[in-house]
This record gives sequence, C-alpha cells and structure tokens, in this order.
Amino acid sequence: MQIDVLTLFPNMFETVMSESMMWKARDRKLLNFYAHDIRDYANNKWRKVDDTPYGGGGGMILKPDVVVRSIEAVKGDDNETPVILMSPQGRVFNHDIAVELSGHERLILVCGHYEGFDERIRQLAITDEISIGDYVLTGGELAAMVVVDAVVRQIPGVLGAEGAQHRDSHADGLLEGPHYTRPPEFRGLGIPDVLTSGHHGKVDEWRRREAIKRTWQNRPDLLETVDLTDAEKDYIAQLAQDKSHNDDD
Amino acid sequence: MQIDVLTLFPNMFETVMSESMMWKARDRKLLNFYAHDIRDYANNKWRKVDDTPYGGGGGMILKPDVVVRSIEAVKGDDNETPVILMSPQGRVFNHDIAVELSGHERLILVCGHYEGFDERIRQLAITDEISIGDYVLTGGELAAMVVVDAVVRQIPGVLGAEGAQHRDSHADGLLEGPHYTRPPEFRGLGIPDVLTSGHHGKVDEWRRREAIKRTWQNRPDLLETVDLTDAEKDYIAQLAQDKSHNDDD
Repeated sequence: MQIDVLTLFPNMFETVMSESMMWKARDRKLLNFYAHDIRDYANNKWRKVDDTPYGGGGGMILKPDVVVRSIEAVKGDDNETPVILMSPQGRVFNHDIAVELSGHERLILVCGHYEGFDERIRQLAITDEISIGDYVLTGGELAAMVVVDAVVRQIPGVLGAEGAQHRDSHADGLLEGPHYTRPPEFRGLGIPDVLTSGHHGKVDEWRRREAIKRTWQNRPDLLETVDLTDAEKDYIAQLAQDKSHNDDD
Repeated sequence: MQIDVLTLFPNMFETVMSESMMWKARDRKLLNFYAHDIRDYANNKWRKVDDTPYGGGGGMILKPDVVVRSIEAVKGDDNETPVILMSPQGRVFNHDIAVELSGHERLILVCGHYEGFDERIRQLAITDEISIGDYVLTGGELAAMVVVDAVVRQIPGVLGAEGAQHRDSHADGLLEGPHYTRPPEFRGLGIPDVLTSGHHGKVDEWRRREAIKRTWQNRPDLLETVDLTDAEKDYIAQLAQDKSHNDDD
C-alpha cells in the first residue's frame, strides 16, 4: 500500500512513522509512506499558503489554488485513489472504515488547518472527508497519523502471521475484557483461576463473557450491532438484574 | 497547566510538541509538558516492561508492577490529578471532555500497548479512561497527542485573545460551514456574494445557516442537542422537503 500525506508540517510525521509497527510495515515493503509539503506548491513570491477569510472573522484559510495544485501534482493521472480531507466535518472514522481503507492500493490524505480550507478545495479535489472524532485539533496531521496507524494495522502481514488485528477491540464489535501477566500476585490482587487452568475452551469462554460485560458496562451502545447467542443475551439480562439489585441497596 | 505523559516511546512526542500551537503554549508558559519513559521504572535486569498474557493468546501485556511504579513516581503525593489511561475501552473523547480536562491544573496520561494492560493497573492507579474513537491503534501515544492538542486549545490565551476555539466545530454543537479566501474566482468557481457585502449581520446569519445545513447533511445526530430557534427548525424542515423532492425526481 502507498500512503501520500499532504501537509504543512511534513516533519511531524518523521518520528511517528519510524516507530515500531509503522517501521516494520515499511521495512517489510508493505507500506510506502510519503509526506509532501503543501508549501512546495505555492508559486507566489512569499510561498504563501493561506489568507484571511472572506466575510471577516479570525483564522487563516488555506488557498484553493495552492492546495488543489499540490493534490493534482501528487495524484498524477491516478483517478482511482481516494483523496481524503481530514476535517471535523467528515464521516466519523471507525474500525469498519479502517478495514475499508486498507483495501485500497493507495490513499492520499490532505491535512492542514483543521477548519480552514477554502470550500472550493472540497469541490474540486476531495473525494472523501474523515473526522477522527467529535473534537477539534489544531491541524489534520494528528488525525492523519491516527488513520494511517489504524489502517496499516489491517494490512495482512503487518502484525505478523497470527492476525492479532482480529483480536482487537471493535474487530468483533465488542471491547476487549481484562488481561493479566506476571506477577501472579501484586499488592494483594491475584488473577482469575481460569487463566491458569490450561483449559483453552474455558479461557475463550471466559474472555468472551468478560468482553461482553465490559462492553455492557462501558459502551452499551455498541451491543446493538453484535451477534449474541441466546445464552449471552441471558447473561446480559443477569448483569442488568444484578446491577439493579445493587443500585437498590 | 502541566501534562505528564507516561509512555514507552517518549521520542514520539518531541516533534509534535515543538510544532505551532503546542510550541506557543509552552513558550507562553501556559503549558508544561513532560514525557516520561515507563522503561525507566523497570527494576529488573533486562528493563522488561511487558510479558505474555496468562491464559495464552498473542500480544504482550504491560506489567502491573512496572507501570504502577512509574505512575506513582510521576504522580508523587498529588491525589487531585486525573490519571487517564488511553484505551479503546474508555469513555469516548469529545469537545465537552476536552473543555472539562482543560479545567485541571495537571493531567497524567498513561500510554502503552493500546490493548495490553494488566487489569490491576486499572484497579490500582487509574482514575479515568479515554478512547479517542472506535478504532484500534498500535499504542496510546497518538491518542494522547490528540487529547493534548484538543485540551491545550481550550486553555485561555493559547489561541490568542480572540478566542478562536469558540468558533470551532462542536463548540456550539454544530459543524462549521464553508470558508473562502482569495482568489475570488478559481476554475470558474466564485464565492457567495454575502461574504463581500460588508454586512456583518448578514454574514453571521449566513454562516449560522450554512453550519446548520452542513450539520444536517453530514451529522444529523448532532442536531439533537443543539438549541435552535423556530426559524432554524423551519429551515431544516425546508432542507428535508427539498431533499425529498430531489430524491423523487
């Protein structure tokens, strides 16, 4: 997969793209990553990339001519590749979109002042718009790094043969339950017996129950789209009943 | 405000924390930022910070002794400060949480393998848990950077006296509408006349309408919690009616 990022701060990507998983993906030739400086496409004397907004108000707005030119230069005659604007106004990024994007051979991500794009950039050169959540950032750079990380994890081979991405939270619609490692006792807190039972079936069953429980506790909204067995639905009903008893006490 | 981050990759924060808004916040003494290496608190011979999970399965789990020790060392005897675990299982970060967190004098953010924390770390040393969205990242570092950026923007004085953060998307519950800057015409596309009318009241009214329209188009779910006037509700009804006419054609 190839990912091209257009940004005013290409240096911001350097350390992040050299760490751990990203580095492995590049080392294994599963990812080609390029950060392009939008400023290189400012043909004016001062390399000016933004200007004040029509109608007044604060903030600086990225110029349509410069940004559209930079996108076209990077895109070339490739019209298959999604050109994605990072903005708080886009569709909200999630696990399913990460999987969807990982199926493309190439992605172009456009970052900049997070809310200051001339509208004509959207009209002329953008095919998709993604928000990583309902909050505002200074620029699209961190949002692009988040998307790159979540997408690259989904490329087969990046996390190794065992397919660790399929065990992630959200991969089956549930949050993950608790994990434990050594030491077996720490400050009086032990670990659940089932985890040292050596019985894989029971461990799997316990993990599924704990994942359901945590999702029910922290994010009940997610349960609406999960396939649950009748026994699992009964388990949730029991959790709700126990909670209501405790609340009454 | 002081923000302490605990991480296995303190270098990842360097370039990001030196860019633009973050740098200004630190330069103006509005933000003290420290990235602490969890590995410095591994007392074992190999500076080992993680181990395999009880019950089998892949992935490495951060050790409770090392991480709890690192949190306690950084926290000192300060029991007021939120100690926030970055994880996909936490409450979902949004604009309101950014504003809430910006009211604290100090925050401690704990990053690590995004899904591989020994449960006892939560039980012993974590007071809050935040997810930046429904997707999985390799580590909590990018999530922490996102939270730091969104929170620091809300500190009075960071964005300058004009309070630009109050014009952001989500600040009034709406997405922002379109922006325009020079040139006035680009590839046959002009700008709305109202923006050059010099009539501030009309510009404000137009912007509010466009913000409502974009929110209605892209994120109708957000409109449920916005205070709208009767005229604005009529406007939305009209948008819906126009759309339904167009869909019928």
